[in-house]
Amino acid sequence: MKTQILDHGYLKLIRSAGSDEDIIEAARMSTDKGFLGWGPLHAPGCQQYRPSTPKAVHAKACCDGIAGDEKLLKYLYDNKHATPFEFAWMVIEVQAPIFVFREWHRHRTQSYNELSARYTPLPDLNYIPTVERLMMNAGGSNKQAGTIAGANQLTPELAELHRRRLYDTYSEAEKIYQHALADGVPKELARIHLPVGRYSRMRAAACLRNWLAFLTLRMAPGAQWEIRQYANAVGELIAEKFPRTWELFVK
Amino acid sequence: MKTQILDHGYLKLIRSAGSDEDIIEAARMSTDKGFLGWGPLHAPGCQQYRPSTPKAVHAKACCDGIAGDEKLLKYLYDNKHATPFEFAWMVIEVQAPIFVFREWHRHRTQSYNELSARYTPLPDLNYIPTVERLMMNAGGSNKQAGTIAGANQLTPELAELHRRRLYDTYSEAEKIYQHALADGVPKELARIHLPVGRYSRMRAAACLRNWLAFLTLRMAPGAQWEIRQYANAVGELIAEKFPRTWELFVK
Amino acid sequence: MKTQILDHGYLKLIRSAGSDEDIIEAARMSTDKGFLGWGPLHAPGCQQYRPSTPKAVHAKACCDGIAGDEKLLKYLYDNKHATPFEFAWMVIEVQAPIFVFREWHRHRTQSYNELSARYTPLPDLNYIPTVERLMMNAGGSNKQAGTIAGANQLTPELAELHRRRLYDTYSEAEKIYQHALADGVPKELARIHLPVGRYSRMRAAACLRNWLAFLTLRMAPGAQWEIRQYANAVGELIAEKFPRTWELFVK
Amino acid sequence: MKTQILDHGYLKLIRSAGSDEDIIEAARMSTDKGFLGWGPLHAPGCQQYRPSTPKAVHAKACCDGIAGDEKLLKYLYDNKHATPFEFAWMVIEVQAPIFVFREWHRHRTQSYNELSARYTPLPDLNYIPTVERLMMNAGGSNKQAGTIAGANQLTPELAELHRRRLYDTYSEAEKIYQHALADGVPKELARIHLPVGRYSRMRAAACLRNWLAFLTLRMAPGAQWEIRQYANAVGELIAEKFPRTWELFVK
Repeated sequence: MKTQILDHGYLKLIRSAGSDEDIIEAARMSTDKGFLGWGPLHAPGCQQYRPSTPKAVHAKACCDGIAGDEKLLKYLYDNKHATPFEFAWMVIEVQAPIFVFREWHRHRTQSYNELSARYTPLPDLNYIPTVERLMMNAGGSNKQAGTIAGANQLTPELAELHRRRLYDTYSEAEKIYQHALADGVPKELARIHLPVGRYSRMRAAACLRNWLAFLTLRMAPGAQWEIRQYANAVGELIAEKFPRTWELFVK
Repeated sequence: MKTQILDHGYLKLIRSAGSDEDIIEAARMSTDKGFLGWGPLHAPGCQQYRPSTPKAVHAKACCDGIAGDEKLLKYLYDNKHATPFEFAWMVIEVQAPIFVFREWHRHRTQSYNELSARYTPLPDLNYIPTVERLMMNAGGSNKQAGTIAGANQLTPELAELHRRRLYDTYSEAEKIYQHALADGVPKELARIHLPVGRYSRMRAAACLRNWLAFLTLRMAPGAQWEIRQYANAVGELIAEKFPRTWELFVK
Repeated sequence: MKTQILDHGYLKLIRSAGSDEDIIEAARMSTDKGFLGWGPLHAPGCQQYRPSTPKAVHAKACCDGIAGDEKLLKYLYDNKHATPFEFAWMVIEVQAPIFVFREWHRHRTQSYNELSARYTPLPDLNYIPTVERLMMNAGGSNKQAGTIAGANQLTPELAELHRRRLYDTYSEAEKIYQHALADGVPKELARIHLPVGRYSRMRAAACLRNWLAFLTLRMAPGAQWEIRQYANAVGELIAEKFPRTWELFVK
Repeated sequence: MKTQILDHGYLKLIRSAGSDEDIIEAARMSTDKGFLGWGPLHAPGCQQYRPSTPKAVHAKACCDGIAGDEKLLKYLYDNKHATPFEFAWMVIEVQAPIFVFREWHRHRTQSYNELSARYTPLPDLNYIPTVERLMMNAGGSNKQAGTIAGANQLTPELAELHRRRLYDTYSEAEKIYQHALADGVPKELARIHLPVGRYSRMRAAACLRNWLAFLTLRMAPGAQWEIRQYANAVGELIAEKFPRTWELFVK
């Protein structure tokens, strides 16, 4: 159940805990009630009555139905009552280029454990963007993905040329790495010329509130396209595990 | 499955996620290996060989057996490599006097949702310590549980007298509360004379690392006896869900 | 320089560090430039030229002037680039009722050191709202400051009556407190019937980003009126020390 | 006042706030007293009496003198009462190789603003360890700085060879970088082959408690030598600004 991302990356769910219902339950601590139910709730006499409806609801329900807990979830979300969304949690594993992890690790509310090149030689996986990706902002619409002043207009040919250069420099870096390791250079120093496009791997854990904060920044149009692909994959996991919260988030 | 605590309190597990194995898995990200197994691991030829032993272990194992992942867990714990312990998570629900919550909420790494007297009148539950509890430090051994200078030596009779005073003042406070509410005093103001011995209720979530940090402070002899009872109950949940980590903690 | 708040509370600045300029300097790390200047900046030939204008600005400036660093500050603020606002910091001391501190301490990004009733008997200061304050929501416009269902309409006479009851119950609580302390009840137990309207005192420290997050929630109309008075006083300190950031915040 | 570190790095103080005295003042909130004084304090009758000694001290002091606030500071430190150490704060600016920042940013209690290669081409500064540094662990005493299994024993000649290879690969990387930028490759993609030994620059802010936590891990013998040089420089700043706390830390 890995989502493949970029040329050698992936993202997969290790574990999720809690649910949309748990968020309601946590929020209801403040009013001394629990989760009541989703969807319109109906009184005992009503055709659409479900026996599982809790007693507290029976008392108030009428045949027009009363709003279920979607309403509270929406209220919490819209009014930034954020702490109930801390009562769900998710752990993922992700393989991504180092420059993606550099952005990712600025989020100080997640837990991280990453492959360490001090302990283990890094696998020889390096990111080479496609021509299409390189050309993506050739129109210049995204300021944050801009070129330097006075640069040429990138063409598919120049993009392809850059890809070949990347391939060559990555290969050369790997050769030097292997030489250095074999020569007895400590692992922690043998790696310092490796490129930020090299892949690494980590596990990351956070509560739902903090995953959403991550997505708010990293799914935004101003975020670098590469980390956006990972953010989108996190979003898909949330959509699956916390569908009602996700619906509120994407709106 | 509630643990009863003090005269009207409780603590119960809502949800735990992850396990001792997950901690190992997270830690092994740094060396690119996963969980290998608990207990001595043996080579294929050996009598005690288990076919589930991963290949990486086969290579190194011999008939004397090699140490299982307990060794890594102990290494992580002893050397304060704390981040792997962030890959397990636990939510509890707890009913406790407000003065206990006042201490609890100083732990800024947990998530809280608490009953709010602004929204819901607080139930009439108030903490009255037993005579035994009141006399606990009569010898004066615990400095942090001290009396004022020049105080009498507390006797069981004086302790019983104090309990009666508590009972009376709690009853009076409740009476005033109900009057105020009935008179139309807003809930948020009707509650301000309520005692810090009044019970409230909350859910709390944290990762295992932060639960252990909580216990380090709140199971310590210098902690107030009341919060220690709650900390002990959290400890029992950890002992059940993360037995190998717990063993390292209590040592 | 204390701001008096409620009947016995106060708030005062202990120390602030950093400035609006420091926020710009921190933000400019990302583009390798420092603080340039506030207000329109002009080229050397221009009448309004100031010699302190940095070289980087000279190059671009023209006699129409170019926008100063207000523009960047506004950009940062409007686009929620929040980390530069972590490069300023403020410590305050505050005396407030315990129920105010209960709300305050839910902000987990501040540092707290509070008077402890385990170590020192609490001074006999208790909050009694004015009649005006008690009547504030008599129209019922603020849902979060609501009364219970079926309550009377509060009148000034009932409000005054409640104030007298508060006064009496506070006095009684203090009497019991002093008895208990004198009888040898440990300080940590002698205090448990004290009301949440009793004053306590603390120091709190946070970076500017987190002070603003506190104000966003606690200056909002839905916040309890009492904590809003404290939040307003924090706001005045920020207005004085970080005037340009404050201007963006209040807009 | 920059400390030069490695071949092109530096660390400098931008701002510190608070002092050893402020830590005492914050801690004394819990007992309702302020900072009393350093060194032995004497009673009014005593020859060494200083009129500035606060009244609370007079009462207890005798001609043998009583311990000053060093004693409380030591008590706080030794007993891990950590929150008072959050009432001092320090901002630094630091230039270091990316692989050092990769380790640094795992500390989630600091605030960061770093040079961004998405916005500004990175200056052409790259870390080349000295032969002495490369040979530092040739004896193999530091496990965490180990070589791969089966590696040669590093010699000064092999070390020098590696330095030349580093120099060449860094030069080649810069050439490709400039080509890519000129060809119109967006800055955010033109940089992905740059090595983790390339220098970047940032500001970092934290309270004293969290600076000490950083030093505990990064001044430890198991930390990579490069980040240890930066940690040592942070330590020198703390020694200067918070000398009494520093003394307790290094013990």
